[in-house]
Amino acid sequence: MIPELSSGFRSIVAFPLPQKDLQAYIEKVNSYYHFKVASHHSTLGFVLPFVAEVFARYPGWELNSNSTPRTLTLNAGNTELSRSALVASTLADICAQKHFAVISKWRNELKPAYGPTGEVLFSMERAAVTLLGIVSYGIHMIAYTRCAETDEPKLWISKRSKTVAVYPGLLDNCSLVREAHEEASLPADLVRANAKACGTLSYLHSRNARAGGEIGLLQPDVHFLFECELPADVEPKPFDDEVEWYQLWDIEQIKEGLRMAKFKPSFALVMLDFFVRHGVLNEGNEKDFVEICARLHRTLEFSVGGVTFAQRDSEAKI
Amino acid sequence: MIPELSSGFRSIVAFPLPQKDLQAYIEKVNSYYHFKVASHHSTLGFVLPFVAEVFARYPGWELNSNSTPRTLTLNAGNTELSRSALVASTLADICAQKHFAVISKWRNELKPAYGPTGEVLFSMERAAVTLLGIVSYGIHMIAYTRCAETDEPKLWISKRSKTVAVYPGLLDNCSLVREAHEEASLPADLVRANAKACGTLSYLHSRNARAGGEIGLLQPDVHFLFECELPADVEPKPFDDEVEWYQLWDIEQIKEGLRMAKFKPSFALVMLDFFVRHGVLNEGNEKDFVEICARLHRTLEFSVGGVTFAQRDSEAKI
Repeated sequence: MIPELSSGFRSIVAFPLPQKDLQAYIEKVNSYYHFKVASHHSTLGFVLPFVAEVFARYPGWELNSNSTPRTLTLNAGNTELSRSALVASTLADICAQKHFAVISKWRNELKPAYGPTGEVLFSMERAAVTLLGIVSYGIHMIAYTRCAETDEPKLWISKRSKTVAVYPGLLDNCSLVREAHEEASLPADLVRANAKACGTLSYLHSRNARAGGEIGLLQPDVHFLFECELPADVEPKPFDDEVEWYQLWDIEQIKEGLRMAKFKPSFALVMLDFFVRHGVLNEGNEKDFVEICARLHRTLEFSVGGVTFAQRDSEAKI
Repeated sequence: MIPELSSGFRSIVAFPLPQKDLQAYIEKVNSYYHFKVASHHSTLGFVLPFVAEVFARYPGWELNSNSTPRTLTLNAGNTELSRSALVASTLADICAQKHFAVISKWRNELKPAYGPTGEVLFSMERAAVTLLGIVSYGIHMIAYTRCAETDEPKLWISKRSKTVAVYPGLLDNCSLVREAHEEASLPADLVRANAKACGTLSYLHSRNARAGGEIGLLQPDVHFLFECELPADVEPKPFDDEVEWYQLWDIEQIKEGLRMAKFKPSFALVMLDFFVRHGVLNEGNEKDFVEICARLHRTLEFSVGGVTFAQRDSEAKI
């Protein structure tokens, strides 16, 4: 059922679950280098061996191939600034040498790597985050209206412009407050009044061909979810060139879109959780219901505490 | 934050998470006997060693202490009937011998043990389910109204009668349809029209003194969640002697009740998930927000597919 329902699901079930197959999990976890920052105990990400070996050619990066698990450690002083500077210079050369396809599209956007209590350990170019496998944080908002007769929700779906850096042309959600204004021309006050926090998603995404770049890079994702019920007469409209159009889709159209893999994978998962919260998916019509709910809220191997919306909102752009 | 917020949470964080401490997890998992049914591969529950040893004294139960993990296997024919009969006779004697405090309160209510595709492998006395550590399924419904001025939800809370078998006197939720009628005198049509499925909870509850019976018995729980917004003029009233009273509590009263451990543990978790879905708990006010969401949707070591509400509704009583 799960793969039929959503192509987005396939990329989050690739990594074995320890509760289901402990041996496969241990082997998988030990097949990666565990990325750490010197004098910090916790693992920040899982790195593919051929990626770790490239980083280890640069000063400030230490490879330990004799430990279990094997480790890649960033040893570049004890401040956010000193670490960020070293990561930046390393990535600049890695990019110039064209080592990895995934950073061929430089985004010029910094993303933070957080420590166990939500402190920023360093920041790095967004396109390269997945090389080190550190947690990405995102915000998703679903804007919807209710059918006056049936009370069934209909969702506003956007089509990503063919010129955006990632997942061009795929279908996506609305954005939040500032972005809702910039991208969807929605009145900011209306969105602020109606948008409600409604949970999280957390999963370990294993990047496939569709995501672009190297296959098998791991991307642990955390999304903070919001939903916003809009009056029937409010209609999001493209404001800039990141969105081609907005359309109001009913549940059947969305199910078909999921089956046909028309959605950006993370948005497919956001919609599955919407379906769960609103009773569209339930134990009566989906035999893997409990497993779907658990898969959408995976305990990650990495610290995810203390990171707040305010922190992320102050980043260049979400 | 988590333990402060809810005593119910303490009992579900006692079992280590493999993603957080793999070594502790492996040791814990291997400290139990894994309960299986002959000619079925999957593990149905984790059993404390001193419990497994008592079962192994009876015919039809096989202990293997030389494997890793150690196993307790029910070998009683290949039908639901033959297995149920053997379990019943074993439990009758175990109860008569007063081996375990947890079955001192015989419930006279059968609960099914499900196989990987939701088929019933056998049924057993409800009070004894936790001895074998098999998955318990439950249904929870939160009945709430919205404050006309602030739109903030207020929840109907029930006080369990002092005479019910488990968690007497603790605070609980409303029940679903038939129970809503029987226990809360709510019109069945109203509940049926307004009750909406809104997800699941899954967790591994480690029984403590408060639950009664032996300490450390494991209880993997799956709850199917429903919520029902009621008009302000509808008021649940006790119908039989299982409920002492119903009261409408606002969010602050509930938070205080959670801190003071006034709620039945599973209901505390049901309310946490309500808080998550309705934005009461969010990343801005709870540093462990992502972890709470993951903990409430734990991947269980046991099959949970294919079990539906209809199946459980046909059981004696939920």
